[in-house]
Amino acid sequence: MIAIDWGTSSLRAYRLGADGSVVERRSAPLGIMQVEASRFADALETQIGDWLSAGDAPVVMSGMVGSRQGWVEVPYASCPAGAAEIASGLREVRWGRRRAWIAPGLSSRDAAGVPDVMRGEETQILGVLDGLPVAASICLPGTHSKWVEVRDGTIVRFSTHMTGEVFAVLKAHSILGRMMREAPTDQQWFAAGVRRAQDSGGLLHHLFGVRARGLFGEVPEEASASYLSGIIIGHELVAARSAATAVFLLGAKPLVELYQHALRQFGRDATILDPDAVVRGLFQLGSRVAGD
Amino acid sequence: MIAIDWGTSSLRAYRLGADGSVVERRSAPLGIMQVEASRFADALETQIGDWLSAGDAPVVMSGMVGSRQGWVEVPYASCPAGAAEIASGLREVRWGRRRAWIAPGLSSRDAAGVPDVMRGEETQILGVLDGLPVAASICLPGTHSKWVEVRDGTIVRFSTHMTGEVFAVLKAHSILGRMMREAPTDQQWFAAGVRRAQDSGGLLHHLFGVRARGLFGEVPEEASASYLSGIIIGHELVAARSAATAVFLLGAKPLVELYQHALRQFGRDATILDPDAVVRGLFQLGSRVAGD
Repeated sequence: MIAIDWGTSSLRAYRLGADGSVVERRSAPLGIMQVEASRFADALETQIGDWLSAGDAPVVMSGMVGSRQGWVEVPYASCPAGAAEIASGLREVRWGRRRAWIAPGLSSRDAAGVPDVMRGEETQILGVLDGLPVAASICLPGTHSKWVEVRDGTIVRFSTHMTGEVFAVLKAHSILGRMMREAPTDQQWFAAGVRRAQDSGGLLHHLFGVRARGLFGEVPEEASASYLSGIIIGHELVAARSAATAVFLLGAKPLVELYQHALRQFGRDATILDPDAVVRGLFQLGSRVAGD
Repeated sequence: MIAIDWGTSSLRAYRLGADGSVVERRSAPLGIMQVEASRFADALETQIGDWLSAGDAPVVMSGMVGSRQGWVEVPYASCPAGAAEIASGLREVRWGRRRAWIAPGLSSRDAAGVPDVMRGEETQILGVLDGLPVAASICLPGTHSKWVEVRDGTIVRFSTHMTGEVFAVLKAHSILGRMMREAPTDQQWFAAGVRRAQDSGGLLHHLFGVRARGLFGEVPEEASASYLSGIIIGHELVAARSAATAVFLLGAKPLVELYQHALRQFGRDATILDPDAVVRGLFQLGSRVAGD
């Protein structure tokens, strides 16, 4: 089987053995934003043409490749959804004598009826479901952080927080960025930001405090971004912490560890999951279409 | 007397009669960011050299002209502060045989001890104090919205919310802006955003909902900015509404009216004050240095 995680900024391809183990992996900075609308098949041939020619292994893809800007728009499956519901939303694409499957994204509605969406994360979650307790919350931190409620092998609902993107645009384009100096994350100032998020006053007020404390020399320029990051992530956690179930973190290393520290400030232990989950999720989906 | 409101992006000059009434007014897009560090006196001479030559009327200025990037940095006065405390922080600048006074900004600390600052708004508030009840909250909406608590003619404390700037950077630089079409404010979608701010889930989640609702065709592209604006302003009001005193709005016309509508959704009536308050505030400060 060939598993492909094709997102906005990169393509990651995995050749899998019959048991789902990774035989070979390749990745390229060839996200869907770097590919012209009609050239997705060409891009795939360029990257893994030799794998495709070697046999007729099923090819399963997930991520933004199934979005409106991707190869083909695959409609969202709706929560609650488990592996079967997501697999039944797989959509086939063909080029020449070849074909591949693209996973659907997933949608959810919150208590107020407002919709939410994910694309790619649903497949990652399928890959970790086996190791979870009956009820769990999975947080996938990032540009658009996801908090996902899982029960009995089913994704019940989820909510997205624009945490990473708000941080990035404020750092790059607001007055807050002007007083920042690039530096590695300062753990103490990050923690101070997380604490600050628990004060009254609201996020919009806490943001201005980054500037005011800078003007007063209370936050060093090289710690200012860490303080801001702690404030914004802290506000995500304040909003998401109502989930009473066990919390799991899924994502890349430095960020999930930051979240783990931050959650500890709220008195919650969180378990970090294997970030290669997407491969197992794609293998599960592929197993359902194999021989189709 | 000559009163000057000199901010980041514009200079507004007023020639006042002995009773404080405006005899003549001029304004120019000559904010402090457009003036070189050593050329503030030249800039002023260019704009109102004829007024300055006509006599020895005291010249009083307020706004960012007293900031680190302005003519001279005037230290912040501290809350609580009334007209006397602010006047005692006025700082003189001289050029040739002429001189002028620059008002100090004002600083405050919130319950957690985090500092806050304003520059210019303190003078506007001095100009409206006379007409207020003993205890009042004044909201000055904008890029950095201020909520100011006033009691017995004194500014007791205030807090700043980065409302306008967060809206602007998200609209210009985030994924939310990509699905917006320019259009006049849509009052109904603005109100929907203000209502949304009262739901659980937090600002970072409500922001992503703008995108998700857009993807589902639930928010028209030309209403998306109004909905976003309502959400962000609504979150400011959720955080600031604890103030139990009467609420007054001070600022430019379309924005204070939007805030008035939004406050009504929280069951609060707010009174709009005369936006020319800064002239009266400068007149009060000038009266205290006249003949000095």
